[in-house]
Amino acid sequence: MKNSEIVYQKALELLKERGVELVEIADLVMFLQQSYIEDLTVDSCLEHVEAVLKKREVQNAIITGIQLDILAEQKQLMQPLQDIISEDEGLYGMDEILALSIVNVYGSIGLTNFGYIDKVKPGILKKLNSHDNGQVHTFLDDIVGAIAASAASRLAHSDPTKSTITQ
Amino acid sequence: MKNSEIVYQKALELLKERGVELVEIADLVMFLQQSYIEDLTVDSCLEHVEAVLKKREVQNAIITGIQLDILAEQKQLMQPLQDIISEDEGLYGMDEILALSIVNVYGSIGLTNFGYIDKVKPGILKKLNSHDNGQVHTFLDDIVGAIAASAASRLAHSDPTKSTITQ
Amino acid sequence: MKNSEIVYQKALELLKERGVELVEIADLVMFLQQSYIEDLTVDSCLEHVEAVLKKREVQNAIITGIQLDILAEQKQLMQPLQDIISEDEGLYGMDEILALSIVNVYGSIGLTNFGYIDKVKPGILKKLNSHDNGQVHTFLDDIVGAIAASAASRLAHSDPTKSTITQ
Amino acid sequence: MKNSEIVYQKALELLKERGVELVEIADLVMFLQQSYIEDLTVDSCLEHVEAVLKKREVQNAIITGIQLDILAEQKQLMQPLQDIISEDEGLYGMDEILALSIVNVYGSIGLTNFGYIDKVKPGILKKLNSHDNGQVHTFLDDIVGAIAASAASRLAHSDPTKSTITQ
Repeated sequence: MKNSEIVYQKALELLKERGVELVEIADLVMFLQQSYIEDLTVDSCLEHVEAVLKKREVQNAIITGIQLDILAEQKQLMQPLQDIISEDEGLYGMDEILALSIVNVYGSIGLTNFGYIDKVKPGILKKLNSHDNGQVHTFLDDIVGAIAASAASRLAHSDPTKSTITQ
Repeated sequence: MKNSEIVYQKALELLKERGVELVEIADLVMFLQQSYIEDLTVDSCLEHVEAVLKKREVQNAIITGIQLDILAEQKQLMQPLQDIISEDEGLYGMDEILALSIVNVYGSIGLTNFGYIDKVKPGILKKLNSHDNGQVHTFLDDIVGAIAASAASRLAHSDPTKSTITQ
Repeated sequence: MKNSEIVYQKALELLKERGVELVEIADLVMFLQQSYIEDLTVDSCLEHVEAVLKKREVQNAIITGIQLDILAEQKQLMQPLQDIISEDEGLYGMDEILALSIVNVYGSIGLTNFGYIDKVKPGILKKLNSHDNGQVHTFLDDIVGAIAASAASRLAHSDPTKSTITQ
Repeated sequence: MKNSEIVYQKALELLKERGVELVEIADLVMFLQQSYIEDLTVDSCLEHVEAVLKKREVQNAIITGIQLDILAEQKQLMQPLQDIISEDEGLYGMDEILALSIVNVYGSIGLTNFGYIDKVKPGILKKLNSHDNGQVHTFLDDIVGAIAASAASRLAHSDPTKSTITQ
C-alpha cells in the first residue's frame, strides 16, 4: 500500500473510532447550505465531504489532532499541556490552527462557515463537545467543523450559480 | 508626523467616513462576550477596540480594503474585479483574507468569533451589508467583524479567568 | 462565457501584460526543485504552474494584486496607501497576505519555498523587483513567487517519492 | 503561580532542554537583519526574542510542537504519524502550520524571513536538522525559525526607519 493511501485509510479509521460518521459531517454541510441550494441532498453533501477527505493536508490535520486528543484522554501529555487540552482551554488556539489548515485548502470562503458552525455547534459537534465520560475532543470538534466548512466551499465552487456561501 | 502615526490617523478617519463609529464595534464585542463576562461594559470593550486599532497590520488591512470598496463604488476597477467586488461575489474570498490578517494578530482564538459574527451580522454589520444606495462595503464588513473578534480575543487574553472565548 | 472562465482568462492576460510569461514561473519551479528531482523538465514544471492557475483563489489574488499595482503606478490611490504600495514599504504586508492565500491552496508545505524565493529573487522576480521606469510590482512579485511555490508543492504531492520539498 | 506564567516557564524550560539557547535564536535574528541595520547587537536581538516568547500563542506552539517531537523520539505515536514525524516527511506540513501561528502574531511581514531561514538553515537550525542520535526536531526547527522571523518583524516595527524587512 502506498504511503498516501495509508494516511488516508488511517484518517478515515480514526474518525470512525472517535465516533464521527461521515454522514454526520454531511449533515453539517446540509445545515450550512440548505437554505441557499434548493434541491440539496445529504448524498450530494456526502460526496463533497469524501472529496475533502482525499486531501493530504486534511488527513495530516486529522491524524495529528486526534492523536493529541487520545494522548490527553490517556493522560500521557506533559503539564500544563495535559490540562490545557483535556479542559479545552479557551486561550490555547492550536485546535483552531489545525482546523484553519483544512479550511484553507478550499480558499478563505470557508472561514465564515467554520466560525459559525463552531459556535452554534449543531448535530455531531454538540455531541463531541459534551465532554462525557472523560472523553477529549478538543481537536476533533474543530476538525469536523473545518471539514464541513470545506465541503460547503467545494460545493459552492462546483456550482457558483446556486450557492451563496459568503456575503 | 511620523509615518506610522499617519497610517493610524487615516485608518480611523476612513472608518468614520464609511459610517463606522468605534462604539458600534464595541457593541459587537459586547454581543460576543457579554454572556461570558458578568460585569462587561461597552467602555471596556471600546478600550480593547482602540488597542486593536493601534496595530499596524490592522491599519494596513483597513486602508487597503476600504480603498478597494471606494474604487468599486466609483466604478474605477477593471472587469471582472469591478463586478466581483461591487456584488460581493461569494467565491471572491480576498475580503476574508484581509480580515484573517487582522484576526491573526491576537492568535487563532478569534477565528470562531469572526466567522460567527460575519454570519449572524448583528448591529453595524447588518447596516454595512444592506447594499443601500449603491454603497459597497464588501471589504469593510469583514474588517469590522475581524476588529471586533480581535478585541474579544484581547479581552480574553487580558482576563483569562473570566472569559471563555472558544470551546 | 461563464464567469469562472472570465476570471481565469483575465488572470492570464494580466500576468502577460505585466511582463510575466508562464515559462518564467516554470523556471522558478525548476530553481526550487531541480536539485531534488533528477529528471525534472521545464515542460513538467509548466504543467504544474498551469494547474495552479486554474484555481479560483489564485486568480482572485492575481487580479486583485495587479489591480492595486496598476492603480499605484497611475497614482490613483489615496495617501498614504499610494506611497506605501508604490515604494513597496517594508511594514505593509498585504502583499504577503495575498500571496499566502495562494500558497495555502496546496497546503503549508509551500511556505518555506515561498519565503526562500521571495528573499533570493531569482529570474523573473529580480526583474519585477527592479523598480525601473516607475513600474510598481509590489503585489505581483509576491504573487509570482507564491505561484511558483504552489507549483512546487503540487509537484511534490504528485510524486512524493522523488521530491523533498521541506525538511 | 498564574496559569499564564506556568505556560511561559514551561516553554522556556522546553527550549533549553531540547538544546536551544535564546542567544542562538538571537544569532538567527542577527543573520536576518544585520545587513539592514548598521549598529545591531546580539543583545538587542535577544530582547526582541524574549518579547516574542512572552506571547501566549508562541508558547502554545512551542509546548505542542516539542511534545510531539518528544513523543516521536520515544516512539509513542500511532502509525503512520510516528514515521511521518520521526522522518520529518516532506508532505506533512503541520510543523509549518504551527510555525505560521507564531509568525502571524507580528503580521505577515515575517513570512519571507521564516521561509528563507528555514531553507538556508544557519546556526542552531543546522544543528537541529542534523537528525543525530535518533533525536527528532521536526517541529522545533520550524518553531525556532518562526521565533527568529517574528523577532525580526518586531525589530522592524520598533524602528521602521532603519530596517527593511521585506521588499
